[in-house]
Amino acid sequence: MTRWAAAVEYDGSPYCGWQIQDGQPSVQAEVEAALSKVADRPVAVQCAGRTDTGVHATGQVIHFDTDADREERAWVFGGNANLPPSISIRWARPVADDFNARFSAVARRYRYIIANRDVRPAILHRRVVWDRRPLDAEAMARAAAPLMGTHDFTSYRAVACQAKSPVRTVHEFTVQRRGAFIHIDVEANAFLHHMIRTFAGTLMAVGAGEADEDWPRRVLEARDRRVAGMTARPGGLYLTAVRYPDEFGLPELSGDPGLW
Amino acid sequence: MTRWAAAVEYDGSPYCGWQIQDGQPSVQAEVEAALSKVADRPVAVQCAGRTDTGVHATGQVIHFDTDADREERAWVFGGNANLPPSISIRWARPVADDFNARFSAVARRYRYIIANRDVRPAILHRRVVWDRRPLDAEAMARAAAPLMGTHDFTSYRAVACQAKSPVRTVHEFTVQRRGAFIHIDVEANAFLHHMIRTFAGTLMAVGAGEADEDWPRRVLEARDRRVAGMTARPGGLYLTAVRYPDEFGLPELSGDPGLW
Repeated sequence: MTRWAAAVEYDGSPYCGWQIQDGQPSVQAEVEAALSKVADRPVAVQCAGRTDTGVHATGQVIHFDTDADREERAWVFGGNANLPPSISIRWARPVADDFNARFSAVARRYRYIIANRDVRPAILHRRVVWDRRPLDAEAMARAAAPLMGTHDFTSYRAVACQAKSPVRTVHEFTVQRRGAFIHIDVEANAFLHHMIRTFAGTLMAVGAGEADEDWPRRVLEARDRRVAGMTARPGGLYLTAVRYPDEFGLPELSGDPGLW
Repeated sequence: MTRWAAAVEYDGSPYCGWQIQDGQPSVQAEVEAALSKVADRPVAVQCAGRTDTGVHATGQVIHFDTDADREERAWVFGGNANLPPSISIRWARPVADDFNARFSAVARRYRYIIANRDVRPAILHRRVVWDRRPLDAEAMARAAAPLMGTHDFTSYRAVACQAKSPVRTVHEFTVQRRGAFIHIDVEANAFLHHMIRTFAGTLMAVGAGEADEDWPRRVLEARDRRVAGMTARPGGLYLTAVRYPDEFGLPELSGDPGLW
């Protein structure tokens, strides 16, 4: 039995999310079906971070165990030959048995992309979120700064979030304008449910001048979900990288989704 | 009766191309249906450059005549409310009666986008073309230089091309690497059928080292379609701008599609 790690890119828009759900198309079901064909026997995968409906990934990481004797190339190219165009495997690598895509991860990185222009984007429909209010990205960046560090993020989690502790450590939080787009990049040890989308909705209110720059900090300190901004739509969200201890020797995707 | 000009952005992948064809979904049919709803009477549009199946636009320009008395905003926002997500109107402006989206144009600009990486892109499927051969973008740029200027482009036109003259003037031709992507930007007074896709296919052979840097020039001089490289696939091609004499006072889109 060998344990394998692999990175997966997907357009989340046609799926109910990562996880298998009865009767709905999921990324996990497609990946398991493709790898099972390569292995010629059933393969079950576990992912680093379950993404919601409509959320994309350029660097989702998975692991799976199999006694099928295959080369790295076979998982990548064979997997991709059996996957729909909206999903691809970027690399595959044999790993130590104690590697776990979810529990070994030391950090996750996400990018949230806002198309900030007058008319709705046609070509990137469901791949970015559209906000026609002129947003001040620098104000958003200043407002985000107090969210870095270790905090109780109760105000920024979904009501349905099942995590035991609301405490997370945000290592990096940047907001940058690139032409008509605004990129919000956040890296943390882990995230609560809807955390980045709630960050994004709250910061967009600041960028639009509907809330002051200190508001996201006050929301954080309130520890009350009802005071935060709207949960921004999922189409702009990308899981771009998952980081592991060096000892596992995994290829590192840069964290730049390589799209924009 | 007022003549209007408008700019249209579209994801070409679900369409048979710009032009109405019996029983197939076309961009033109969608745009005419949406503007007819805004006008509350039939509207027929003419475009600057008919794009093929699967080709995108961020700056297609159209004109139409109507006696419906509407504001600019009504065409843009009303049009967009009636268009599918894959198409949007970027601006609309009343113009002089002698303006013609096709015949008044003095230049067209296209971008061709290649995803140059090991595994196929999932998120940008049909929005870029994928070439896994490591391409030398600088060699491609040098090879493209002799294609600038006024030439007989017989070698770079489709067999089915209906243009009377094969002579065109290329004003600008750049090839640039941006991370895992290569952008080919070409501006000319006008283009022959499949001209940019034949440029792209020929330059990709140079970039892959399958042809020498002087080959595109020799192909040009041969004036024989059979000697050029393959016509590259349509999914990477974007009509990004159409230029008109200043007297028409149209808003100028930058030519940067604002995507990458």
